[in-house]
Amino acid sequence: MALAARAAGAVTEVVGWGRSAETLERARALGVIDRIAPARADVARGAAVVVLATPVRSLGEIAREIAPALAAGALVFDVGSVKVNAIREVERHLPRGAFVACHPIAGTERNGPDAASPLLFEGKACVICPSAGNGEEAVATIEALWTAMGAEPVRMDAALHDRVMAAGSHLPHVAAYTLAGVLAGLDPEVVSGLLRLPTSSLRDTTRVAASSPAMWRDILLDNKDQLLPLVEKLAANLDGLRAGIAAGDGDRIEAILSTGKSGRDRLVPS
Amino acid sequence: MALAARAAGAVTEVVGWGRSAETLERARALGVIDRIAPARADVARGAAVVVLATPVRSLGEIAREIAPALAAGALVFDVGSVKVNAIREVERHLPRGAFVACHPIAGTERNGPDAASPLLFEGKACVICPSAGNGEEAVATIEALWTAMGAEPVRMDAALHDRVMAAGSHLPHVAAYTLAGVLAGLDPEVVSGLLRLPTSSLRDTTRVAASSPAMWRDILLDNKDQLLPLVEKLAANLDGLRAGIAAGDGDRIEAILSTGKSGRDRLVPS
Repeated sequence: MALAARAAGAVTEVVGWGRSAETLERARALGVIDRIAPARADVARGAAVVVLATPVRSLGEIAREIAPALAAGALVFDVGSVKVNAIREVERHLPRGAFVACHPIAGTERNGPDAASPLLFEGKACVICPSAGNGEEAVATIEALWTAMGAEPVRMDAALHDRVMAAGSHLPHVAAYTLAGVLAGLDPEVVSGLLRLPTSSLRDTTRVAASSPAMWRDILLDNKDQLLPLVEKLAANLDGLRAGIAAGDGDRIEAILSTGKSGRDRLVPS
Repeated sequence: MALAARAAGAVTEVVGWGRSAETLERARALGVIDRIAPARADVARGAAVVVLATPVRSLGEIAREIAPALAAGALVFDVGSVKVNAIREVERHLPRGAFVACHPIAGTERNGPDAASPLLFEGKACVICPSAGNGEEAVATIEALWTAMGAEPVRMDAALHDRVMAAGSHLPHVAAYTLAGVLAGLDPEVVSGLLRLPTSSLRDTTRVAASSPAMWRDILLDNKDQLLPLVEKLAANLDGLRAGIAAGDGDRIEAILSTGKSGRDRLVPS
């Protein structure tokens, strides 16, 4: 985001803070940030816009910490994958209307300053979930920033966003991580065979399991109400397919696979 | 395969047979095949090499049907995803040593003559599972054909192949199809949201669920012994993650995600 905003001429100075001094130094060395804030509580001092890009369950605490140094009229936004809780937790600590909840539908399984690209948001949607406290001017300012960074803003109710992402992102991560967990337990002969015979199905189906466990822990916890019923459906589907295989029931297996294919074909038209 | 063999100058004439007259005509119109066999039992007549590319549980019956017309010295190979059963079912109908079990680790979720590409095998591994009856000359001939088509032959014991593919291909398909099955049941508002906000995680995690249900029904049935224990492990992992989310147990969730990440990072080095 720092690279994209800089490339767009949308920022004059980027001040960074993070848990790891090493990562911060690396970000400065790469020109991602201009300087490192002396402490987390200082990162917002003098800023026109503050971006919170941390695991979603830390957003409230960070908002509380930065609030005293926040300039009048400064805007704060996040980039997290769950929005209802973020709005509730952050807004309680900030001036009314200062927080604009955002979720760019972009990113990869990689992280850290070396994975940064100014083109990350190019042509990607960025969901904006205005809250009751947001004025139109604040929302429009943040939308303009996303547009400058290459993204296409899409306004959506926070509750609907959380339902959509439970299905379209959080559940796929649950599937990928649990599948990859099985692969972690394979015996060495099979692992060696797989390294000789890489399959595109394994590569694609598990890709997002390379993502940060700490980030995804928070997302799965934070969107529990929307996600849990879908996880239960996935478990039921899996159990049905398991039973079909165990019984050698080709018709049952084919019916389950056909339902899956129709779901895929509807949501990802070829 | 027809396009790749033709591009390599490895074939003089390609004769095709399939269940659908429409598909056969389309393949001929596109120049994928030269002519259509009058009936399935005739497809092998006069052929030096016969390729069986059908759902794996139909291989034995087809071998039985084509055997009477098979020329002396002709070779037969398949391209199926399960090898122990294929060898047993096909060899009982063909002259000793005539069948060479093959599995190119290539292909996409698409099928039919319009999806054909002469470059499909370029740089991809093709597993050859020699059986006790195979002479070195027959295996070398089939390997040379694969090499001509751009693939890199890899010899492997059939039983090990089936274990490797259960983990590296069949289980990922189980995960993708059951995940996509959940998405098939989403309500219209969520579907509409997902179509506005396409995610790469959904796209990649479900990609192979666009594959042919009939083909995958047979694979899952045919490799049941290797696959079922892995499906059970996947179900146990999923239940563990479900329980962690339900209990709000961040440590448990993070441990499961970290195990998944280590499995992914080991098998698909970045």
